[in-house]
Amino acid sequence: MKKPIGVIDSGVGGLTVVHELMRQLPKEPLIYLGDTERCPYGPRTEEEVKQFTWEMVHFLLKKNIKMLVIACNTATAFAINDLHEKLDIPVIGVIKPGARAAIKSTENDYIGIIGTEGTIRSEAYNDALRQIKSEIEVLSLACPAFAPMVEKGLLEGPEARRVVEKSLVPISKHDKMDTLILGCTHYPLLKDTIQEVVGEDIKVISSSEETARETSTTLDIHQIADDDDQSPLHQFYATGDLEIFIDITQRIFKDSQFEVLTIKHADL
Amino acid sequence: MKKPIGVIDSGVGGLTVVHELMRQLPKEPLIYLGDTERCPYGPRTEEEVKQFTWEMVHFLLKKNIKMLVIACNTATAFAINDLHEKLDIPVIGVIKPGARAAIKSTENDYIGIIGTEGTIRSEAYNDALRQIKSEIEVLSLACPAFAPMVEKGLLEGPEARRVVEKSLVPISKHDKMDTLILGCTHYPLLKDTIQEVVGEDIKVISSSEETARETSTTLDIHQIADDDDQSPLHQFYATGDLEIFIDITQRIFKDSQFEVLTIKHADL
Repeated sequence: MKKPIGVIDSGVGGLTVVHELMRQLPKEPLIYLGDTERCPYGPRTEEEVKQFTWEMVHFLLKKNIKMLVIACNTATAFAINDLHEKLDIPVIGVIKPGARAAIKSTENDYIGIIGTEGTIRSEAYNDALRQIKSEIEVLSLACPAFAPMVEKGLLEGPEARRVVEKSLVPISKHDKMDTLILGCTHYPLLKDTIQEVVGEDIKVISSSEETARETSTTLDIHQIADDDDQSPLHQFYATGDLEIFIDITQRIFKDSQFEVLTIKHADL
Repeated sequence: MKKPIGVIDSGVGGLTVVHELMRQLPKEPLIYLGDTERCPYGPRTEEEVKQFTWEMVHFLLKKNIKMLVIACNTATAFAINDLHEKLDIPVIGVIKPGARAAIKSTENDYIGIIGTEGTIRSEAYNDALRQIKSEIEVLSLACPAFAPMVEKGLLEGPEARRVVEKSLVPISKHDKMDTLILGCTHYPLLKDTIQEVVGEDIKVISSSEETARETSTTLDIHQIADDDDQSPLHQFYATGDLEIFIDITQRIFKDSQFEVLTIKHADL
């Protein structure tokens, strides 16, 4: 059997990474685990996030994954160094791919970043950006209302628009920022609304799309890409209510065709 | 002393990769070697291209490079597998980064690719694209007039426009292609003209920009990125006429500031 790529997230946000992985790497079988029971991770302590992340990783290691994608910015911010050190499969997070894409995009070195409180507090994006290019000016803003709104399935309409508008006030009128990183995998589900609020001139970078692309590069460097033409079977697990999880999954993948082996509850 | 990234090309086209490397990875010292004496590689045999590429690689290995970027599509098409196998430093070419960016960009899986005769004949882009996504439809076209035109410094104006228009006739009216890969590192110097000819609706992918980004990913995976803040010193070598080389270099880097250690003739 083909070995899958493991994808973990605090909830449903990581499904935007899965969506892009299926589109950009359609030969690769995926196994997704969303910790919907304990979502959001944003307000939790570093220790909690690390512990929960390791619990998810242990669940997936038993499923024989060949690579791990941390499709959650908060978990990436707090746990990736530890995972890199202790796992012997390739591990990628969502922060560096987003940072690299933003550096490629910006023309004036002013980059905005929105994410959960945990991600913003960790300054992981600032570190990733400045490690590559010291000149980058970073405007960062926590948007604690966004992820819970998405988990409830509120993705568009006047209420979503009101929340996005109000949350983005501190950066939406900044006159220099030319690139904005969606530093939470839930946010691509609000991308159209966010783009409208910040205006067409701002290049909005989805860390989900960029992570799918870097997954491709990583598979290639480690020579573990799957290139046979048999359609892959995907597996989905969630720790919380399966009904809401299936509902949101159907909405995210409404225009996609793929084969599912499993959608199940996971006990960590 | 900081170890440099080595960049090789058949001529001056690879300087577009260098330009992007400096922009996206400003802490990294670079050493460039352009085989301007024997350019273009496009019409040469596979054996010749392999031999010339190895001669350039041996020159750079003596300069203690930590990584090799093959900033030439023809050399990538014919020599990268051999280089991967025999070198113990990371090696990246321009083809896979361009292919991955095109897969991320396309919405209907119709991708155009223009390059030298050698690159097109090798079908290296077709292979790279279909290895990742079998559904991709590839329209490929050799544009043998472009690279020599750029080497002569003819980058814009009515004559350049005429050559570009005439060369692109076979694909410029295609009604499905939504993404076009510039599969030769000379072509970003003609990007504005090419974009005008194919129209605004086509996303034009520069393999140079994409290769700079994947260089960043590769440095990261191999943990050999430079992150101290000291300005790097760059080195430039060419096998042919140094006067023309310096003239084109000045035009490509006219808006850039960087420090040069050396611009010298190279004997291979």
